[in-house]
Amino acid sequence: MKQGDHGGNIFEAAGFLGVAPDEILDYSSNVSPWPADVFEGADTAKIFSRLPEPESETLRDAFAEKYGLRRRSVCITSGTTEAIEIICRIFTGKRALILSPTYSDYGRLCHRYNISTELLFTKPENGFKPVPRLFRTDADICFICNPNNPTGVLMDKPALIDIIKTNHNTFFVIDESYMPFAPDELRQTMLKEQLGNMAVLRSFSKIFGLPGLRLGAVITPGEEQSKRISSQLLPWNVNSAAQYAGEKLLKKDTTLAAGKLRMIKEKFLKELEGLEIVKPMESDVNYVLCRLNGMSSAELFEKCLRRKMLIRDCSNFVGLSGSWVRIAMGDRMEPIINFLKGI
Amino acid sequence: MKQGDHGGNIFEAAGFLGVAPDEILDYSSNVSPWPADVFEGADTAKIFSRLPEPESETLRDAFAEKYGLRRRSVCITSGTTEAIEIICRIFTGKRALILSPTYSDYGRLCHRYNISTELLFTKPENGFKPVPRLFRTDADICFICNPNNPTGVLMDKPALIDIIKTNHNTFFVIDESYMPFAPDELRQTMLKEQLGNMAVLRSFSKIFGLPGLRLGAVITPGEEQSKRISSQLLPWNVNSAAQYAGEKLLKKDTTLAAGKLRMIKEKFLKELEGLEIVKPMESDVNYVLCRLNGMSSAELFEKCLRRKMLIRDCSNFVGLSGSWVRIAMGDRMEPIINFLKGI
Repeated sequence: MKQGDHGGNIFEAAGFLGVAPDEILDYSSNVSPWPADVFEGADTAKIFSRLPEPESETLRDAFAEKYGLRRRSVCITSGTTEAIEIICRIFTGKRALILSPTYSDYGRLCHRYNISTELLFTKPENGFKPVPRLFRTDADICFICNPNNPTGVLMDKPALIDIIKTNHNTFFVIDESYMPFAPDELRQTMLKEQLGNMAVLRSFSKIFGLPGLRLGAVITPGEEQSKRISSQLLPWNVNSAAQYAGEKLLKKDTTLAAGKLRMIKEKFLKELEGLEIVKPMESDVNYVLCRLNGMSSAELFEKCLRRKMLIRDCSNFVGLSGSWVRIAMGDRMEPIINFLKGI
Repeated sequence: MKQGDHGGNIFEAAGFLGVAPDEILDYSSNVSPWPADVFEGADTAKIFSRLPEPESETLRDAFAEKYGLRRRSVCITSGTTEAIEIICRIFTGKRALILSPTYSDYGRLCHRYNISTELLFTKPENGFKPVPRLFRTDADICFICNPNNPTGVLMDKPALIDIIKTNHNTFFVIDESYMPFAPDELRQTMLKEQLGNMAVLRSFSKIFGLPGLRLGAVITPGEEQSKRISSQLLPWNVNSAAQYAGEKLLKKDTTLAAGKLRMIKEKFLKELEGLEIVKPMESDVNYVLCRLNGMSSAELFEKCLRRKMLIRDCSNFVGLSGSWVRIAMGDRMEPIINFLKGI
């Protein structure tokens, strides 16, 4: 079995090995290992027996209220994927800049809408940190994942704001799917920055450990772009259970889970210190990009798989060769740590 | 309160009246009043704690097997809306024919993708039945909802097949969202017809009373079109709970609920016989289009709303004036029957 376009397909892995999905230890999917218990006592049948709200109005308003945003600047989406697709559709035929290596869907969806893409690469020798000087671009749209997937790097916020302000003819998509895992999230997020040429993407699934929900939000302070995005949403794009869960999730604290995962990461990094074959990079979030020496990512993927462990082979991230893997933190790290130490 | 673009918004109605959504009797949404109990004993939290399958592979294969279809001809979608959108996207800038009056999303999504639309109207004086002679069209794509919403009319199947075969340069979208309510569904469905210039849309939400799921399928016998559609699907377009439910629902019998609803409809038609103000049309499914005399649809909508009953004002269906309403069959028909009889 080879990895598909994305990580996290434990069903395929389980099918390949002939075991139950429960037996797979999944380090390939960047989500919290502690699913939030929002359905405790919920009457799921009743929830599904009604049409969802067409535009998730209640959830949208609650999101806006929580973060002190204008209601109309918020759209609730079926995961961040839907938001990226809608934005790409709006920019059909234009030119994009993608800060890379990064999540592959920006490029894939640009391609779908005939958007030409230029990739601006951060370098391993700089710890994948964007070069300190501001960049200038004449692209119509620019994708920045922050903190970035798969590198785990959080950008310096004043620098990011400067970039967005300097390039005022470029529309910036700041994907904050992993922001809740970063230290001091509320200071780092761009959610409340009133920049007219920016959209911020948020995800409900990662920090709450509920990737099955398909629930996200796009926040667009600029009125014109915000209208364009909301006019492209399909009615009932989010199902009833996801709307129900979203309302509960907004009330939950996320700092505890984020803090625990950072401690797990510190321990993981310490345990792997000095290993020759696997060199983990620094990370601001709940996953760690590792450089391999003397073994390809496909080889390590296979070896892990045979031990019922799924890791993310990063060779299909444009800009990363076949010597990188990504490992997400979970509540059972010993098996992967012991395996890596023993190679 | 006026009705929005679609029926079924009991939340808005409840908010307007200042009552709980549970107190609203909803005759505006065309779904079965008996939600299938697929979540009995399910561990919902666990279901959501995993990414869905990227393309709902298990559900897709089960659907194909149930109806004896090629696996690759089936795509699972987030409701039929997503299927319509993808098909419209593929036909961007082309010309469409829409058999009308009908569900408004065909026209709305054609408009989004710059598809010019021609409407072919069926007439109330013919009971909204398509004219018996075959029609010829040079449109690139043709939308036929069968049985049709809001008229409730089921087309003659041999005639439909002839139309599709005759117009072999036109791609036909046959929306069978309401087919499970029709008598003799398996004989009437186009699912197994091997016509290369056709896609059939199916919905899981209507017959199973689970509109909150957002779950549908598009079946495309033609290989080229089938590939084009599947290449436009977003990964994880369907959430985990919807995939879980879909697999259970495929095993359920639907003929009992459909039969019960037909009996309820017969009784409804009989009770309304001879009324001056409300004249129900014949219907092959679980909802009835009614012509009003001496009262506008907006007026009747308002009057019903004040009695906590939601009906579908059909004035925003292109081709229907303000004298039509649609009433869906449910398990509590006395209140609406008594009210209509007493006007």
